[in-house]
Order: sequence, then C-alpha cells, then structure tokens
Amino acid sequence: MYYIGIDLGGTNIAAAIVTEEGKIIRKDSIPTLREREYSEILKDMANLCLRLMEEEGLETKDIHSIGIGSPGTADPQNGILLYANNLKFKNVPMRTEMQKYISVPVYLDNDANCAALGESVSGAARHYGDSVTVTLGTGVGGGIIVDGKIITGSFHGGGELGHHVIKMDGDRCNCGRLGCWEVYASATALIRDARVAAAKNPKSLLLTLVDGDIQKMNAKIPFDAAAQGDEIAQEVVAQYIRYLAVGMVNIINIFQPEAIVIGGGVSAQGENLLVPLREEIQRQIYGEDQLQTKLVTAELGNDAGIIGAAMLSKIYK
Amino acid sequence: MYYIGIDLGGTNIAAAIVTEEGKIIRKDSIPTLREREYSEILKDMANLCLRLMEEEGLETKDIHSIGIGSPGTADPQNGILLYANNLKFKNVPMRTEMQKYISVPVYLDNDANCAALGESVSGAARHYGDSVTVTLGTGVGGGIIVDGKIITGSFHGGGELGHHVIKMDGDRCNCGRLGCWEVYASATALIRDARVAAAKNPKSLLLTLVDGDIQKMNAKIPFDAAAQGDEIAQEVVAQYIRYLAVGMVNIINIFQPEAIVIGGGVSAQGENLLVPLREEIQRQIYGEDQLQTKLVTAELGNDAGIIGAAMLSKIYK
Repeated sequence: MYYIGIDLGGTNIAAAIVTEEGKIIRKDSIPTLREREYSEILKDMANLCLRLMEEEGLETKDIHSIGIGSPGTADPQNGILLYANNLKFKNVPMRTEMQKYISVPVYLDNDANCAALGESVSGAARHYGDSVTVTLGTGVGGGIIVDGKIITGSFHGGGELGHHVIKMDGDRCNCGRLGCWEVYASATALIRDARVAAAKNPKSLLLTLVDGDIQKMNAKIPFDAAAQGDEIAQEVVAQYIRYLAVGMVNIINIFQPEAIVIGGGVSAQGENLLVPLREEIQRQIYGEDQLQTKLVTAELGNDAGIIGAAMLSKIYK
Repeated sequence: MYYIGIDLGGTNIAAAIVTEEGKIIRKDSIPTLREREYSEILKDMANLCLRLMEEEGLETKDIHSIGIGSPGTADPQNGILLYANNLKFKNVPMRTEMQKYISVPVYLDNDANCAALGESVSGAARHYGDSVTVTLGTGVGGGIIVDGKIITGSFHGGGELGHHVIKMDGDRCNCGRLGCWEVYASATALIRDARVAAAKNPKSLLLTLVDGDIQKMNAKIPFDAAAQGDEIAQEVVAQYIRYLAVGMVNIINIFQPEAIVIGGGVSAQGENLLVPLREEIQRQIYGEDQLQTKLVTAELGNDAGIIGAAMLSKIYK
C-alpha cells in the first residue's frame, strides 16, 4: 500500500506518493492560486493526486489514505479545516471535498504538526521516542509528538510553542502578547538584531558582509561573521542563543522529549548553532542533571510536511 | 474490585481504599519517619495497606492494584523511584519491595502527577477531556493529562510547569534558573510580595490584618484586604494575577486543555481568584478568540494524590 501526503501552502500545493516507511517515491506541485473558491482549490489537489497515481501506475485500491497538512487550525477527527487565515478558509470540509474525487480515507492536520510527525517517523527523530520539532523561520513553529501522537489540545489549536511568553512585558508579538519566544528566537528576530548591531557598529563584519546594505541581512551572516572572529557578530549570536535556550529548557522541563529537532533557515548552521546551544541549555537545567534530550537538526526540509501528512492515518486511525 | 492509593510524603504516609469510580471508602495515615532505611518505610506502607484491607473485610483477591504517589522522579514502567530528594531515596525498587508483602500489581508515579490524575478521574476535571492541574503552594506544581495519560516525558521528569521561565533574567528560582513561573506565581511569591507592600505601606490593611507583624502574612490576607477596598492589596493581587495569567496562557497555547484545575492554598479564593484571572487570560489569547479552556478550582484537596495513585493502573496497564 502507498500513502499520499499533501502540503497545502499559500503559494503552492505539493503532493507526493509515500511508502509505508515514509519515503517519497514521486512528488509534484502546482500553484495554489489562493484567491479561488475552496472547491476549485480542492479539485486541483485531488487531480494532482490522481495524476501522481497514474504516473506511478497506481489505482485507488493501492492507496491506503491521503493526508493533508494545512496552515491554520484543523479538526482532524472530522476532517474540517476550521480556520486558515492566509487561505481565507473557514470550516472547509476538506475530507468530504477530496472524497468527491478519490474514494480513500482522508486525514488532515496543521502543517507544522505534520512536519513534526514527518521528522518523527522518518527524519531526524526517527530513532527517538517523544520529540519536539521547533522551526526557526519567519516565526517559531512547533510540533509536539508524545507516544507517537501529535499534541494539539482539545480545541485543535495547541502546540504553539512560539507563542509562549519567555519575557513578560517584553516586545509585542504578532499574536498580540508581549514577550513571546517567537519575538526573540525566530530567524526574523536574529536578522532584526543583526541589522541593529550592524547599523550601530559600521566597522563590524556584519556590515561588510552585506556590502553596507543592512537590508541584505540574513540569518546566515551573523554566524559567518562570528566564525571569522567579529566580536559584534559573536555578541549577536550569543544573545540569540540565550533566547533560544530559554525556550528550549522550558520545553525540556515540560516535555522531557528524547529529541528536539530544529528546523527552518537557522538550522542550516548545524553544529555551529547546536554546540553553543547545548552548552547554554546545560547551564539552565536542574542542578547537576546531565542534559538527556538530544538536540538535532531537521533532515527532511520541505518534505517533512508532506511525509508527515501521508502518515496521519497512523495516528488518527 | 478495589484499588489502593498511597500518598508517600516527607512527613506522613496516607493510604486509602478506593472504588472503581475513584471514591475513597477507607483512609488512614502513619508517620513516614523518613530518616529510616527505605525497606523499613516500605514495610510500614505495606502494613498500612493490609490493615485497611482487614478493616474493610477485603482480601488480596479483592484488590486490583496498589498505586503509589511519591515526591521526586519515578520510573512508572519499572516501578522504581529514581530520585526523591526529601526522602533521600535513589533508585528504590518500590514495586518489588511492596510485592514482598502484598501480591498485587504495584504502580508508581510522581505525587503531583497523581494529584492531576485524581482531579481528572473523579475531581474538578472529571467532566472534561485533557486537563492540566496547577498547584499554587510553596512552589508551583503541575500535572498534565492528555488523552487520559500523564505527560512525564521520556526521562520521567517532565510536567514541571512551575519551572518554565516567564521572565528571562528575572529572579532566581530554587531550581537555579532565572525567572521561573514558580518564582512569581506560587503562594510563597504572593506572601513575599504582600509582605514587601505591607512594610512599604504601613497604613495598608495588609499590615492591619496581620496585627502589624508581617511574619503572619499568608496567601488569604491580600485577597481579604483587596476585597475590603485596600488599594495596596488590590495592586498586590492584580500583579499576582498578571504573573499567574502569563503562565496559564502559555499552558493554553501549548496544550489547549479543556480544563485547567487550580489547586493549593491560593485556590481557596475560588471565584475571587478565577474571575480576574479569566479576564487577564482572555486579554492575552489570540486575536478575537474566545477562551475555551475552563478554569476551575481543585475539588479533592489532599485526597487527589491518593485517588490518582489508586487509578495509576488504568493508565499504565
């Protein structure tokens, strides 16, 4: 049997045929054209699945199930997308719509949760039990896997690790709160802080590496400048890691997962990020305890969401 | 069938015979005398169980299982108390020791987790699905119930909601970190803040109600003085509720439980605490969302841990 995973994004819809073991064997994507009616978008999604099946020589009877990872808040039990701001979807019956075109079981969950499940099943956390995936990108996304299941809460909107306050009365978050982890630990935050430091310290390598234009700053440059010995950049990175560590230790004290998987742009730094992060975390955990949770970087990249979506049937059977 | 629950404390050992529905039908307690060898303490525990059984006319075949709630870190799968600081227990084989005296299945978990399970099964959260119990006492204890199971993490020490940082670089916590929720939201914190305010404002009712002796301050007085219109006390209470709410919204954004159960001394304030707390939480949750999580006070008091311990067999079968 094969599984189909779909990653419904604001720009593109990616879908893939996935094996029992969570390996992608055929993948393609189409534009979402998100201004359309949901029925049009879902028809395209179904047709993309049918085309992939045909290309692979598969029939409906060969497909165990389809899983959809979507932005926003999903009700997995009923297959309804309750709310997705950037798609302007509200209470969309995803399962029913898809089953108009393909008669297989259809599952649904939030995209960040699917990515966490993907890393857990066949990515960086595949050899570990409980895992938490934290994505450091525009915001801080999260997905929590306990006993093989996704923690989403009784109202399907949980798992929002980026929106836990680590600095009460701190800076304003997009969510309305003050001092959320996301305000300090996202790639956006690192870039913002690096820009401020570069503007204040024109002799810093931070400014050299963006050719004097702080608009060109990205999440890699502070690490590059720090590695080349630039003290201003080292301070920016050290402060960023301190913020990151506070939230990570909160996660550890609450979940004690066997692994924390770090994804998103910043995770490209690999051990440059993980080595000082582990040190800072070690300083903050209880007494003389040795840090038991493994910190690893994500392995599946953008495929994590597709693979996790394909595996949803394993947790919502 | 009947269940036995044991609450192993640093001062007393309480045990009870509990029905299938989580009702206590016979209870008693003995001193722990914690300086003794663990084998002595466990022998007394077993004898207390045997005596309760005899008094109730029950035989071993009538007892489904025994559950033990203990301070510290427990390995429930193997029935081993890994570490309990105030008992000086380290890697104590609780199950094996108990079974020397009574031949029934023996289960074990942390006492705060047992209390959360007790409230979930037959206390304040019995009509709800996922629940989080937060105990506001000397510290801030927590227990997280998802899908009827306790979240303790891969290394059995999770669920430590009191030790998540809400105020980075804030005041030092006993755990070593800076700015843990416990530092601001425990009954201890409220009493400390009320003492400071009373000392600074000698005309405040806060000082009158302790007869001019701030050592007599407790967690009830700030609420009493606030209710009588004392502005200083109202400020103390409002600030305390703000601290409390930050952690509560963090819990809601991560777990979205159907209910949060508040226990410990401060919970005696009931709606005096809950009404302003709900308002502050409502202000902090996403956009225009209505707060869905119910906030309720604990119902089982000290029995929660015993009842939860008795019910451990239901989750670790």
